[in-house]
Amino acid sequence: MKCIKTPMKGMNDYLPSDMRLREYVQGQIKQTYGSYGFSQIETPCVEHIENLTSKQGGENEKLIFKILKRGEKLASAEDQTDLCDSGLRYDLTLPLSRYYANNMAQLPSPFKALQIGSVWRADRPQKGRFRQFTQCDIDILGDATNLAEIELMGATTSMLVKLGFTGFTVRVNDRHILKAMAQACGFAEADYDKVFIILDKMDKIGLEGVEKELAAEGFAAESVAKYVKWFEKAGLGLSAREFCGEELGEALDPAVLDGLDEILSCVKAGATGEFNLVFDPTLVRGMGYYTGTIFEVELPGFSGSIAGGGRYDEMVGKFCGQKVCACGFSIGFERIITILKDQGYQVPDDTRKVAFLAEKGLSAEKKVAMFREAAALRAEGVQVMVTTRAKNAKNQKETLRGEGYSEFKEFFRRED
Amino acid sequence: MKCIKTPMKGMNDYLPSDMRLREYVQGQIKQTYGSYGFSQIETPCVEHIENLTSKQGGENEKLIFKILKRGEKLASAEDQTDLCDSGLRYDLTLPLSRYYANNMAQLPSPFKALQIGSVWRADRPQKGRFRQFTQCDIDILGDATNLAEIELMGATTSMLVKLGFTGFTVRVNDRHILKAMAQACGFAEADYDKVFIILDKMDKIGLEGVEKELAAEGFAAESVAKYVKWFEKAGLGLSAREFCGEELGEALDPAVLDGLDEILSCVKAGATGEFNLVFDPTLVRGMGYYTGTIFEVELPGFSGSIAGGGRYDEMVGKFCGQKVCACGFSIGFERIITILKDQGYQVPDDTRKVAFLAEKGLSAEKKVAMFREAAALRAEGVQVMVTTRAKNAKNQKETLRGEGYSEFKEFFRRED
Repeated sequence: MKCIKTPMKGMNDYLPSDMRLREYVQGQIKQTYGSYGFSQIETPCVEHIENLTSKQGGENEKLIFKILKRGEKLASAEDQTDLCDSGLRYDLTLPLSRYYANNMAQLPSPFKALQIGSVWRADRPQKGRFRQFTQCDIDILGDATNLAEIELMGATTSMLVKLGFTGFTVRVNDRHILKAMAQACGFAEADYDKVFIILDKMDKIGLEGVEKELAAEGFAAESVAKYVKWFEKAGLGLSAREFCGEELGEALDPAVLDGLDEILSCVKAGATGEFNLVFDPTLVRGMGYYTGTIFEVELPGFSGSIAGGGRYDEMVGKFCGQKVCACGFSIGFERIITILKDQGYQVPDDTRKVAFLAEKGLSAEKKVAMFREAAALRAEGVQVMVTTRAKNAKNQKETLRGEGYSEFKEFFRRED
Repeated sequence: MKCIKTPMKGMNDYLPSDMRLREYVQGQIKQTYGSYGFSQIETPCVEHIENLTSKQGGENEKLIFKILKRGEKLASAEDQTDLCDSGLRYDLTLPLSRYYANNMAQLPSPFKALQIGSVWRADRPQKGRFRQFTQCDIDILGDATNLAEIELMGATTSMLVKLGFTGFTVRVNDRHILKAMAQACGFAEADYDKVFIILDKMDKIGLEGVEKELAAEGFAAESVAKYVKWFEKAGLGLSAREFCGEELGEALDPAVLDGLDEILSCVKAGATGEFNLVFDPTLVRGMGYYTGTIFEVELPGFSGSIAGGGRYDEMVGKFCGQKVCACGFSIGFERIITILKDQGYQVPDDTRKVAFLAEKGLSAEKKVAMFREAAALRAEGVQVMVTTRAKNAKNQKETLRGEGYSEFKEFFRRED
């Protein structure tokens, strides 16, 4: 018999200390989002292959772990399509859309959902990137108003504050503004995505780099010049209205600017800690399914975001055949865990912890008394570990201290 | 685009009300086992196919969801063995053995582990039996003494009491007694398993049925007669010592009887509620890997068990190449949820819940004030749902009342 000790490549065994942190953070997430009225839901980890490959997952569709159809004979299977009828989900957004379509009659409207669950991607494993990892999403379905954006941002910033994060930055933009600016500068609609992909590199290559790449793509010099000049005003702390000025004209519904202003004011009004909340015209977010507001949270000193999301009003409808407005925020759970772990974050815990160490061969009478004592302490809320006293009790106590036990009581066969 | 609304066959979408119950029960489990010093751990849902098919899972190995190897070309794959390098775990015990072997240097000894996680079995779906379901296991590794059994039973009964269960019965037996009895009656060692499988049917076919089936198997009439006569004493409430009497002689190490006595006395000493704890010589438990004590919990009025476990001292060693004593208790999480749901169990919840209903088109000023008010309430621990006021507000409030909101505040564009 050959048994393999290590877990599958890119997937993790979590030690008790890992779990304490993960459980604590999940608890804070559940509690905070709960206080904002989000309801927890759960979908199966296994999803129909038809849904997983319906072109809504972008690059993630290339990373699916496919599951063999049960009872399928290989001889009759011409290719993988015949062999596999399901796969492991690569995110929580696609299952949410299916879930909502399947259960909408039983759900309130608007519906505020919280999901915490594992997802799988057959990515090349590297530091902080796993093949099985936890995602944490909040979504509001069926609300076309910006209350959705405000609640999502309010809950997420409040959760980050609870975890001790401070000084982070929430960047907000709107796909409508991105598009109106591209239009006002004379880019063709078919080229918008190309333009945005280049704009998205601003933080890496700077405005000069963006200009160079836009020119290299062969866009009209006049358009590029106007676009780049406009973005010189980015980062000056202007509001969306100040940044856009009068130049967008009819390319942009003025309600978009009012809406952004409102979102920022209301999130600030509900803020539970210190953080920055800014309009950032350079924010793009890759996923093509966003239709309106987009947002991202960054921590000073860390590249990349720790949370991000936006409005996606067209996706859920693909399942239920009717338009369902949707807005969601995805928290980078694994990233937050990595950062807290690197910071040496201590999970708050004021439980009194006592270890009972019982020498081997203790009489039945003494054991009974010991367990009675343990029960009495547990009834008072004390965590009591009853365990066999190791021969090297000093070592054992050291280990137990590492687990938070600060009191020890030893039970010996004979009293000394 | 064809999207499928329903979840995969035998797998569940959980509604908010389902999740409230599931989360509550999981919380009680984590809290109770935590107070007994069990540490939560987690293993990946995906496991090496070699481990899943190593003949430790019995019938479950026929029910594995196999995962296609990434990048494998079908042309080169002669059969499923080449195509699949992994599968979804069918239980938590096999991954625990692998986990312990992989991480033992970093784990305390004895190690008290709590696992809650999904497992998958391609069973025929039926009421209360799913293809993805939650298992909940506690195990103590590295403790050869009966402190392990006592802690497992103490924690599990205490958890059941917390969930409001009362009058349940914990049945305890020991594989050593089963074997010694079979030996004392003259059955051949090679036939023990056959004998136990028949004995295991006692609750369904009665002692007469057992006698008939043993005879039909062609066992010596004298052995069958002695065996059956012995079991006439089962159910009389005898202790293991009284039941076994002097007849087992050298077939049984007397320490086994002392051990059982101790277990029962100590669990009773630590009990936090009313339940029955009995020695039951007819308890067999199917899994061949048990090596000593076995136990099961039954609820009056429900067939089948709601938890079960035992000592399995030989299994973990298959991974780490050295003997590791182990004892575990598996809680029938889905069964408990089904019973609580059928009973109309109400999750205790004293959170004050207020819904803010905002009419569409509320001014920015009023919105800001509303979110400030919501933040103030949330800071006091109130759950506040801010949502758009539906045209049919009466209906909306009814739905919200169903979710536990008892107070409503409406925000209108203009004051009346």
